[in-house]
Amino acid sequence: MGDSAVKELEDRIKKDGRVLGKDVLKVDSFLNHQVDPMLMQSMGKEFYEHFKDQGINKILTVESSGIAPAVMTGLSFGVPVVFARKHKSVTLNDDLYTSEVYSYTKKTSNHISVSKKYLSSDDKVLIIDDFLANGQAVNGLNTIIDAAGADLAGIGIVIEKSFQKGRQLIDKAGIPIYSLARIKAFDNGQVVFEDENE
Amino acid sequence: MGDSAVKELEDRIKKDGRVLGKDVLKVDSFLNHQVDPMLMQSMGKEFYEHFKDQGINKILTVESSGIAPAVMTGLSFGVPVVFARKHKSVTLNDDLYTSEVYSYTKKTSNHISVSKKYLSSDDKVLIIDDFLANGQAVNGLNTIIDAAGADLAGIGIVIEKSFQKGRQLIDKAGIPIYSLARIKAFDNGQVVFEDENE
Repeated sequence: MGDSAVKELEDRIKKDGRVLGKDVLKVDSFLNHQVDPMLMQSMGKEFYEHFKDQGINKILTVESSGIAPAVMTGLSFGVPVVFARKHKSVTLNDDLYTSEVYSYTKKTSNHISVSKKYLSSDDKVLIIDDFLANGQAVNGLNTIIDAAGADLAGIGIVIEKSFQKGRQLIDKAGIPIYSLARIKAFDNGQVVFEDENE
Repeated sequence: MGDSAVKELEDRIKKDGRVLGKDVLKVDSFLNHQVDPMLMQSMGKEFYEHFKDQGINKILTVESSGIAPAVMTGLSFGVPVVFARKHKSVTLNDDLYTSEVYSYTKKTSNHISVSKKYLSSDDKVLIIDDFLANGQAVNGLNTIIDAAGADLAGIGIVIEKSFQKGRQLIDKAGIPIYSLARIKAFDNGQVVFEDENE
């Protein structure tokens, strides 16, 4: 079961992913613009299988591309999903937890925020996101979880670019992480996964 | 089955919705910021029951709040979901279908776009959106569907404010529409549905 979701995702990346430049992978055809709901459901079940014993009662992600995998994960857990909102500028607002997220791809900073109503010290949170590269989004979400006094139980990632620094930072911090597809390298426009050629 | 999703949604709106001013309903606790995946799934099944005989092969929505109900609807149909992206300014790009959407709430215009790769004349499209008020978002999506030469099979709305002009415009255009919750009025901060007091 578990392996089948990973295999399905890796096959889909090989078939439909497009490698741009030295470190960009576009998966617009099933994740970031067009979404395959059946694949999202398989992935949600797989995250549930991995994290089901951690007492998780809330899923946290960032709009927009995190929403589909996060909602399917929330469905498997039977718990609410909160998506942090992106803003160009800081909105000073006592009702919000806010943090800053730098995008290496776009070379701009965004602020993300979560209403204080939907995150509290009672929450044991699983972060779900579409990509892990330098770990900026996860770091921003973690800052918000800390500010709320909530507990970060783990991180579930759809596609990890293991050659960028995000994974290493999370491992160093001792946070449980499960990435479905782990990309070791792009080799002449081809995707090489961590578990290949070993 | 059908009625239960509608009833569940109406009860949730009565319990958790907050009426602001004369025409704004905030449902941040289960739809627009925090999302209830189980409710989204019930709604997706309900849209499927209503539109299942229309030959629909694609679901179209707009980021971000449309994504959760749209993905659950796509899961019930077993078809891909495309979410249009919002931009502050027009991005001139031959690869995109683009249209303009005015927000009466925010009093600003956004542009929305869909990649030409994910919408074509082969598509029979169901639009899913979280709210219907003045019909601007639906109109923008319809413009994109026309530009792609695709066929609009119907519109599924989570919450319709029937007292604003969107519903009337869609009925006039003869487009099949199914709104799960139809709000007739806000009466002293209370939500009154179309099917009440009749």
